[in-house]
Amino acid sequence: MPKISVKGQKMPESPIRKLVPFAEAAKSKGRKVYHLNIGQPDIETPEVALNAVKNYDHKVIEYSHSAGILSFRKRLCDYYKTVNIDVTPDQIIVGAGASEALLFTFQSIMDPGDEVIIPEPFYANYNGFANNAGIKVRPIISDIESGFALPPVEDFEKNINEKTKAILICNPNNPTGYLYSEEELNTLRDIVKRHDLYLIADEVYREFTYDGKTHHTAMHLKGIEENVILIDSVSKRYSACGVRIGWLVSKNKEVVATALKFAQARLSPPSLGQVAAEAAVDTPKSYFEAVLKEYTARRNAIVNGINGIDGAFCSSPSGAFYVVARLPIDDSDRFCRWLLEEYEFQNETVMLAPASGFYSTPGKGKNEVRISYVLKVSDLERSVKVLDEALKVYPGRVL
Amino acid sequence: MPKISVKGQKMPESPIRKLVPFAEAAKSKGRKVYHLNIGQPDIETPEVALNAVKNYDHKVIEYSHSAGILSFRKRLCDYYKTVNIDVTPDQIIVGAGASEALLFTFQSIMDPGDEVIIPEPFYANYNGFANNAGIKVRPIISDIESGFALPPVEDFEKNINEKTKAILICNPNNPTGYLYSEEELNTLRDIVKRHDLYLIADEVYREFTYDGKTHHTAMHLKGIEENVILIDSVSKRYSACGVRIGWLVSKNKEVVATALKFAQARLSPPSLGQVAAEAAVDTPKSYFEAVLKEYTARRNAIVNGINGIDGAFCSSPSGAFYVVARLPIDDSDRFCRWLLEEYEFQNETVMLAPASGFYSTPGKGKNEVRISYVLKVSDLERSVKVLDEALKVYPGRVL
Repeated sequence: MPKISVKGQKMPESPIRKLVPFAEAAKSKGRKVYHLNIGQPDIETPEVALNAVKNYDHKVIEYSHSAGILSFRKRLCDYYKTVNIDVTPDQIIVGAGASEALLFTFQSIMDPGDEVIIPEPFYANYNGFANNAGIKVRPIISDIESGFALPPVEDFEKNINEKTKAILICNPNNPTGYLYSEEELNTLRDIVKRHDLYLIADEVYREFTYDGKTHHTAMHLKGIEENVILIDSVSKRYSACGVRIGWLVSKNKEVVATALKFAQARLSPPSLGQVAAEAAVDTPKSYFEAVLKEYTARRNAIVNGINGIDGAFCSSPSGAFYVVARLPIDDSDRFCRWLLEEYEFQNETVMLAPASGFYSTPGKGKNEVRISYVLKVSDLERSVKVLDEALKVYPGRVL
Repeated sequence: MPKISVKGQKMPESPIRKLVPFAEAAKSKGRKVYHLNIGQPDIETPEVALNAVKNYDHKVIEYSHSAGILSFRKRLCDYYKTVNIDVTPDQIIVGAGASEALLFTFQSIMDPGDEVIIPEPFYANYNGFANNAGIKVRPIISDIESGFALPPVEDFEKNINEKTKAILICNPNNPTGYLYSEEELNTLRDIVKRHDLYLIADEVYREFTYDGKTHHTAMHLKGIEENVILIDSVSKRYSACGVRIGWLVSKNKEVVATALKFAQARLSPPSLGQVAAEAAVDTPKSYFEAVLKEYTARRNAIVNGINGIDGAFCSSPSGAFYVVARLPIDDSDRFCRWLLEEYEFQNETVMLAPASGFYSTPGKGKNEVRISYVLKVSDLERSVKVLDEALKVYPGRVL
């Protein structure tokens, strides 16, 4: 039997997914599991998108253009007009989710061994794509006490070397929910300009901002138009994660031309998903108003709930639908597994994502978890109760 | 403006896709273009699959299991039973097309710098996936005069070194249409066993065999069960290329576990496509009988047509729906572009794939093109006529 590769074995396990077998085992014992581990919203996909699927009337489900169906890319430009971003269809490459779009981005602008700076904690799968592309992530720690604000300029400067090609931010942030200010974006612009770097801005949660706060896009930064690569997706915006439709946007022709070569190598993004995604652009404003109201209530429920637990803390994020919470625990990996394997409160338990997987610095995040508030308020309140009771009896509790 | 990466620029352009802008320009001039360049069949997707899309009744288009929807993987096992292959759902990882499944395979079993041996000409995008995975393709030339049979054992032995991890075959073959014999598969088994290699078998054209010939699967090879990784897809089988649903199958638990980590990093394969693909397994036998009859007629039309052209030659392949034809031309890249940019016969032209892109050895395939016979017979006959006339006036004709 041939030996398996070292690289394959070194591929990091997804902190969001690796506990799935334990959750399945818990459920098979008849236990109810509240899924706070994954950003799979329970919000219904807009009817316009579902109807487009039902009305699909092609006789052959064909490949699309490698960069995505042209009419879809045109509709995306219409969408961008509504958020004041000026884009043309030839500046867009559609991928199988933002996942693939980000992988194409990494592969297009970096050689193996090159480095990208990312404030941490960061979306765990960035590690996977970096591993795929053979590049190195250089993390800069952002602080739970500040609500995970942008780290100071000096921390970026210290980490820039001749291998550094890009800075990547997620705004609003997954996993922290942090919404970067205009000032922070200007700070990034100055660093990027000074060192001639790419700025990759993952803005898939653009619409999810709370308390009347405004989202500031990297696409508005003056003087670095050719440096910015926007990563976007319909997954969260329209609660349509399963369509696997994301894309990159760049005004840099060379970046788009290079990414297109990677796109051509896999022929086409999913056609049926693009049909749903194109129709989703027509989602009425009222849908978002209702969704935002719901998420605001959910955020409040989880933030108040967590801060009401003895020894637990989280800040109140302004965007996305995640929080990173500090808990009085020894090891979040062990705790999250224990919740599924050994614990139950009235035959219920919760599934959380250990925050250690969202850090690249070893040892960080051991007393933190990511919570996705994608369930209805009553379920979130119940989840907090179940978690509170769990922390009272967890053998690895620390104070 | 930051410099773009060397690796990104070195990504090979798809020979199947790179001429698309010239085809679009030709069409914008009102010219009819016969597409013989891409394996996009005009055959209708089976009604059971289209109906499954129309009847999609979920309220949320959710992520699926990272390895693919369980009910779909179970249906795939039912399908495999019909072709005498014994597989369980946990031996399958579903990807966004066979493309992604093959990329996961390369990444799981090889480190950057490792090597895979592939008889050439081979499916051009293998180069792209190898580039993505940072591995090296070592080509072994198969010969147009033999119909592109398996190269002799000595050619494999000469190319095996300590970096060699796998042999990859496509059976029936894209681009040559060659169907490997049982004897050839046994030869591969012996090499694989002797050197402890993986055997990656791309069998997405399994059903497309002609003249009553039998397809022999690598999954039946005795003694190397843990070495074989099967690549498969619904794209061609059910004329559903746009769903982007392929998968890998392996009895080697470590291979599947490692591939799953790559699968988890991108969360989920396309959900809507899986719904169509699962239903497609119910396609009635009569569908395939009609399709095979049609493709046999098409193959005959193209093979007879090509061999009737002065100075042109192709063998009659037993599988898939491609032929590699030798033409009296100086440079297939130049010729294929000239057909689109400068030539027309009664306001019509043909789009072909230069075979040079299907070879890894520099200079090979310059007088060869790949032809996909995915159009109806009358269009193929007309295409041959247009090509025949083109070769009479092409300035780079050689004899």
